[in-house]
Amino acid sequence: MARQVYAGLTAQEKENDPLYKRRHSLAHVLAEAVLRLYPDTKLGFGPPVDNGFYYDFQFSTPLDPEKLPEIEAEMRRIISQKEEFTHYEPTPEEAIKSLEEAGEILKAEYVRDLIKDGKELHFYKNGNFTDLCAGPHVGNTSEIPTDCFQLDSVAGAYWRGDQSREMLTRIYGLAFSNKKELKEFLRKREEAKKYDHRKLSRELEFYTMTDMVGLGLPLWLPNGTVLREELEKFAKETEQRGGYQRVATPVITNEKLFYTSGHLPYYKDSMFPPMQIDEGQNYYLKPMNCPMHHMIFSSRPRSYRELPLRLAEYGQCYRYEASGTLAGLLRVRGMCMNDAHIYCSPEQLADEFRAVLDMHRFYYDKFRIEGYWMRLSLHDANNTKKYVNNPEAWAQSEDAIRQVVRGMGVDFEEVPGEAAFYGPKVDFQIRNVVGREETASTNQLDFAVPPRFGLVYTGKDGEEHTPYCIHRAPLGTHERFLAFLMEHFKGAFPTWMSPIQVMIVPVSVDKFGDYAEKLASVLRNDLYRAQADLGDDTFNKKIRAAVTAKVPNILVVGAKEMEEETVTWRRYSVKEQRTLKFAQFQAILDKMYRQRVMDNFADTALPEA
Amino acid sequence: MARQVYAGLTAQEKENDPLYKRRHSLAHVLAEAVLRLYPDTKLGFGPPVDNGFYYDFQFSTPLDPEKLPEIEAEMRRIISQKEEFTHYEPTPEEAIKSLEEAGEILKAEYVRDLIKDGKELHFYKNGNFTDLCAGPHVGNTSEIPTDCFQLDSVAGAYWRGDQSREMLTRIYGLAFSNKKELKEFLRKREEAKKYDHRKLSRELEFYTMTDMVGLGLPLWLPNGTVLREELEKFAKETEQRGGYQRVATPVITNEKLFYTSGHLPYYKDSMFPPMQIDEGQNYYLKPMNCPMHHMIFSSRPRSYRELPLRLAEYGQCYRYEASGTLAGLLRVRGMCMNDAHIYCSPEQLADEFRAVLDMHRFYYDKFRIEGYWMRLSLHDANNTKKYVNNPEAWAQSEDAIRQVVRGMGVDFEEVPGEAAFYGPKVDFQIRNVVGREETASTNQLDFAVPPRFGLVYTGKDGEEHTPYCIHRAPLGTHERFLAFLMEHFKGAFPTWMSPIQVMIVPVSVDKFGDYAEKLASVLRNDLYRAQADLGDDTFNKKIRAAVTAKVPNILVVGAKEMEEETVTWRRYSVKEQRTLKFAQFQAILDKMYRQRVMDNFADTALPEA
Repeated sequence: MARQVYAGLTAQEKENDPLYKRRHSLAHVLAEAVLRLYPDTKLGFGPPVDNGFYYDFQFSTPLDPEKLPEIEAEMRRIISQKEEFTHYEPTPEEAIKSLEEAGEILKAEYVRDLIKDGKELHFYKNGNFTDLCAGPHVGNTSEIPTDCFQLDSVAGAYWRGDQSREMLTRIYGLAFSNKKELKEFLRKREEAKKYDHRKLSRELEFYTMTDMVGLGLPLWLPNGTVLREELEKFAKETEQRGGYQRVATPVITNEKLFYTSGHLPYYKDSMFPPMQIDEGQNYYLKPMNCPMHHMIFSSRPRSYRELPLRLAEYGQCYRYEASGTLAGLLRVRGMCMNDAHIYCSPEQLADEFRAVLDMHRFYYDKFRIEGYWMRLSLHDANNTKKYVNNPEAWAQSEDAIRQVVRGMGVDFEEVPGEAAFYGPKVDFQIRNVVGREETASTNQLDFAVPPRFGLVYTGKDGEEHTPYCIHRAPLGTHERFLAFLMEHFKGAFPTWMSPIQVMIVPVSVDKFGDYAEKLASVLRNDLYRAQADLGDDTFNKKIRAAVTAKVPNILVVGAKEMEEETVTWRRYSVKEQRTLKFAQFQAILDKMYRQRVMDNFADTALPEA
Repeated sequence: MARQVYAGLTAQEKENDPLYKRRHSLAHVLAEAVLRLYPDTKLGFGPPVDNGFYYDFQFSTPLDPEKLPEIEAEMRRIISQKEEFTHYEPTPEEAIKSLEEAGEILKAEYVRDLIKDGKELHFYKNGNFTDLCAGPHVGNTSEIPTDCFQLDSVAGAYWRGDQSREMLTRIYGLAFSNKKELKEFLRKREEAKKYDHRKLSRELEFYTMTDMVGLGLPLWLPNGTVLREELEKFAKETEQRGGYQRVATPVITNEKLFYTSGHLPYYKDSMFPPMQIDEGQNYYLKPMNCPMHHMIFSSRPRSYRELPLRLAEYGQCYRYEASGTLAGLLRVRGMCMNDAHIYCSPEQLADEFRAVLDMHRFYYDKFRIEGYWMRLSLHDANNTKKYVNNPEAWAQSEDAIRQVVRGMGVDFEEVPGEAAFYGPKVDFQIRNVVGREETASTNQLDFAVPPRFGLVYTGKDGEEHTPYCIHRAPLGTHERFLAFLMEHFKGAFPTWMSPIQVMIVPVSVDKFGDYAEKLASVLRNDLYRAQADLGDDTFNKKIRAAVTAKVPNILVVGAKEMEEETVTWRRYSVKEQRTLKFAQFQAILDKMYRQRVMDNFADTALPEA
């Protein structure tokens, strides 16, 4: 899906962005080309978007997507004709008249709405083509290099996004600063398709979905469940070392809890409908864990000695997402979140926030996620409606968090006016495999919810104080983070996460099958996921099968190995193989597991036995 | 709560049970005593029950429970008067007349219903007391030893269990075969109260409940979550070694799944109401995991080579239980089940069932659960309505399972006609702390559900075959099993499960506090739950606090310990203490954890360092 990355840009920002102007002009050129080839076509909208542009058309007969090259050729012809872009402002009467004469019913409808709202009308003209448009554009069409763009695909789109209106035909185009960027984008997209988590999940049996259970509700197959459980175990160990305590809370709750938190009625559209029991009591699936943790905080009196109190839970949440927006594991209705809430005093805020950001860095370094940066969202002191009125808390916390962010040595940007109602936040931004920016995790300070829930602790002074609350989820949800890792690792997970960790292949089953099985059972007894391939296939076919399954360690055993109690070790990502004592391999495996070594990268140094 | 253990007994069985007759007669004696002391009292029902008897009365003024000794004294007087129990059968007219003359409105109402249903009327008389009753009774009241019973408590109860009817006063009595049994019951009950899991959970902070979240929905506090997670980890390791594969499935599902399984509409009353989304699609919280696992089995073609396929999940289930029946962790609405389904061929059934029963024994031995026995429930070949019509499957499977059960060397009983509709089952029966029999776990063979879901595998012969399915859950649900363990261990868990595993107490915080904290942090880095008590309390108070918290290992450190890098180790259940190198303690701790040593029993041999 193309994102409208240009939404919200000022006129000046557009003017200063040559790629914006080029993409915008290409949309007009596309529309002009279509009208030259299919004169009775009617126009919808045609904006620049992330990676290029599109235009929506009402064709008199359906467009055959195979015609795109012809349209593209016509666009190049227009470009070579050096058509100049000129701006003009017709009167409302002129605008309506010209659109109606051209039979542009849809555009005319939109222009009438603009007129009703008292808006100015801007049109642009190039060659014989005119369009309602505020610009800006390139000077003339020949400024667009003909090798920096191409038409891409065709899709359906409703007029003005309204499902009750006309279905139009949307033609997408790609456009970049130069040919190299275009090629790079296409290459990455091909790669991304090859390693799309949905495709990998089918091939490697990570999860399945079925209408019988419902949309957006993945059933994790054994291989995918290994990924979940290993990631969860790693997170739990990391959190235990970080001084977190674990809790476990129900998936449903009486509505009272979400009225107290304020999620009801405001967040209701994103929640599943209620279940009514016990004579009129409404119960809801929880869309987040926070209020449950607040109830645990308030389940008995708390002292300053207990702070910071860090409550962690891999919590199962359910959110109602429209069926059309569901996409693989990236947008689901049931999710399991790497959640925690830290209750602390204002004095502890900086240290706690630093520890949270450090934990992010630890994970990102571990998984070799590179090029991430932080967005620090601050409040706008002039916007008293949007922000909770607590100047002291805003000042103290924004100052503390800014200092922490600065001290991280990681790129960051400050975004005033983008804080939530209840406190500043720090987002971690990453780029996905085709370079699109995504928020990987949000760390949110909250000084509004503790008073809502009446959370207090007794301070050293014997008085009651209200704690701060930090929401954090460095690994997001299993669903999104594992989808990311599947693509990031191209399906080849490190030994510690891998569904099959060791495949033992005897050179001959008759002669060395027992030895292979003995080694496999020794490893299994140490809780490694190890198998001996004792099937009927040829040796080479077995090796290929293990490589196809992306098994990180293949141990080949033959006469020499059996005699010397050795194994010949092949790693998934590495050409060389190595013969070593089986006990040595066991010791390395053990260290690789405990240290969570990322041996799926060929350059990773393995521990010594 | 008293159970009606005598429900369903035949007249002959009652006649052969002297304790039944004694308890039944005591109910009459109680009623007679009450009428002697409070002549205008009206009668409800008064049956014998587990541990004794009760009688429901309509008092003209509320009974003061302090009057029970007076009533009991009157009962002893009646007993000493050797009143004979005599049976008679009045005509309907006589019965109604005598009850109405006595003002027994409630009894008269019931007798009219019996007459309407064409039932025979039986009355018993002793002394001046008569009661509608089918017997049997002792010969005369003096056959009841006066030291084998006592009145116990007073409670409210609705006439005929109907909340819209009169609230009566129920007087409970205890009665056993002799004085010793009565005393033993009272002692055990006192002990059980002291170690009731609800009381322990308040003291040791295992879980909490709140109206804000809802009845029967525990929030597990950090200490209780440790218990859950350690038990789960142990179960997962045990299942991994047993060749199980793990899966993870959603908590909700489209109703289609439960219509296919047959839970809807038949099990609907025990399910939460549906949530309707996506234009008329009903979604339900799952009350069990089975159908989800069947969907995973059928998510792709299966070969005989994959069987037995053992799919395991600690699955979260939700069942609607009436609010009045909810009780601590023993009856909840949200539960997490040690679930698995084994799909196998008929030839594999015996081995798979044996492995399941062996796993039970492994757990019971590990947790020192003694005196358990098995109930093998078989079908009744003559009752073709109650049982799925598959004589071959019944014969083959019952024979196989009977052989396996016989071979276990564990007590068992066969119960014909108690199998489920869809296959034979083996229950594990245990006695709780007051000696009451409970079903700890059910292992169910199912040959009806695989055809319902169209589950098939390709056999060696290239043909499609239907597998058997075994349902099993040796550790039941976290909620019930942990409640059992809390009481079984009296809150003192073994080191591997304990919320705090090691508490280090310095003889002086000033002098040895740093050493204590260093040791604690070394242990924490190895993921042990260790703390150093560096607070202001006295040394003795700190030791007492650790004992009160039932910490299994206390390490005392002073000058000698710091100099020699030793610790003085006190175990919770053991008098002697022992000074040893810290490294030695670490090694023992490590083995205790990995072997899940039950060091909470004083006689348990600890591993050597």
